Amino acid sequence: MCGVGTGPDDVATTRIETTSPHVTVAAAAAWIREKSAGRLRAVGIGSFGPVDLKTGHITSTPKAEWRNFDLAGEVGRALAAPVAFDTDVNAAVLGEARWGAARGVRNCIYLTIGTGIGGAAIVEGRIIHGLTHPEMGHIRVPRHPSDTFAGVCPYHGDCLEGLAAGPAVEARWKAPGQSLPADHPAWPLEARYLALGIANYICTLSPERIIVGGGVMRQRKLYELIRPQVAAILAGYVGKLPEIVPPGLGELSGMLGAMALAETAA
Amino acid sequence: MCGVGTGPDDVATTRIETTSPHVTVAAAAAWIREKSAGRLRAVGIGSFGPVDLKTGHITSTPKAEWRNFDLAGEVGRALAAPVAFDTDVNAAVLGEARWGAARGVRNCIYLTIGTGIGGAAIVEGRIIHGLTHPEMGHIRVPRHPSDTFAGVCPYHGDCLEGLAAGPAVEARWKAPGQSLPADHPAWPLEARYLALGIANYICTLSPERIIVGGGVMRQRKLYELIRPQVAAILAGYVGKLPEIVPPGLGELSGMLGAMALAETAA
Repeated sequence: MCGVGTGPDDVATTRIETTSPHVTVAAAAAWIREKSAGRLRAVGIGSFGPVDLKTGHITSTPKAEWRNFDLAGEVGRALAAPVAFDTDVNAAVLGEARWGAARGVRNCIYLTIGTGIGGAAIVEGRIIHGLTHPEMGHIRVPRHPSDTFAGVCPYHGDCLEGLAAGPAVEARWKAPGQSLPADHPAWPLEARYLALGIANYICTLSPERIIVGGGVMRQRKLYELIRPQVAAILAGYVGKLPEIVPPGLGELSGMLGAMALAETAA
Repeated sequence: MCGVGTGPDDVATTRIETTSPHVTVAAAAAWIREKSAGRLRAVGIGSFGPVDLKTGHITSTPKAEWRNFDLAGEVGRALAAPVAFDTDVNAAVLGEARWGAARGVRNCIYLTIGTGIGGAAIVEGRIIHGLTHPEMGHIRVPRHPSDTFAGVCPYHGDCLEGLAAGPAVEARWKAPGQSLPADHPAWPLEARYLALGIANYICTLSPERIIVGGGVMRQRKLYELIRPQVAAILAGYVGKLPEIVPPGLGELSGMLGAMALAETAA
């Protein structure tokens, strides 16, 4: 997704198909040039990963053409503008903190439950980068005793992403999640795994608010299923529990966060 | 443990038995008054928990006499000095960052594996406090398939602390850990659980260094068992792995960290 503007009340967006890196960047740059009409001051990128944040390269992605691609460099050259570069989920948590459901919150987590599970956190006002960047979706959680599904993560099998991302839901139930009714047994199990992951993040990060988005969460019943499960798992040990809410910016969290990133480069 | 001084090269320490809160604080204050000989500028406390950091109270501890005790207030009145108050593990990570194994590191974790499992983290240079404070030992991890031990955590049963803290080792093997030889099967299983916890913390926090201390880690072989298990669990997905090392300050991490805290109050 691409956007040009200054914030949620002043933004034009488009979707550009991800094909080969050079073609994709050229198409995005052409659209941005046209929409910004000579007023482009900086570019922010929230990239799929894994990435090297120091160099702005994609690193070990399964998408072979994109491996070791200098995304920040190519975009900067194509648009002759300064570039700020971070991961897609880091951009999303920044967008939610700036304009969305985490405004005024110094400790929050953004999770996306979609084709994968990604997470980012702001701690005491700063995005976690660390040694590389978090890979929250790849934590291990206990399986439900009745669940014999092997998991779909090519690296870990049954990490949280392997058990609960969209492709895991589809592989386990032999049907895409969006085709399963709200009373399907898929959803309590999905809520159980997401609640186990969220409980682990709460124990580790003590966030004030947790924003959960991504395609799987279009099944809105999940929010109501997850909250009591988190409380049951933590069993009163953690005195106050964070709010668990949908994104305030809908599907624009990452794109608007990239815009906030661009401000830092301008 | 109590200390008086200005840092690791200038410190007197003692251990004062933890009995009732008023008796314990009075004994500690008397020793501190004597050792500081009129030169006391401030006091730092790294407290067992759970605590309310805003008010300096102990909260829901199983130690009934200490529940809702105003520890920071009582110490401040006893010594007529400003008090800085944090959790024991937050003090420990601060001590290690200031003088120990995490000097110069902006993202690190301190874990203690003892009568419980506690953890604290510094993220981009700041200690995580968040909504309350982390309770890292209470994350859930998958059980080893052959392990039928129920776990000893009174809140969660088989959370990481329930499966792998000192009392869990003792209850599972019917003997205290320090009596088990280095080739006992307790240790590979213990390393497996600790490695699962550490892998989850790595996915969530992306630390540069992880310091692991506490009584259970006196079995030094654990370090060598944990490191390859962490790598095996993450399976190459996380490009760079953090170092996993013992505390640089031995058993003084928390006490010296409290001294660093006191500086902020002075």
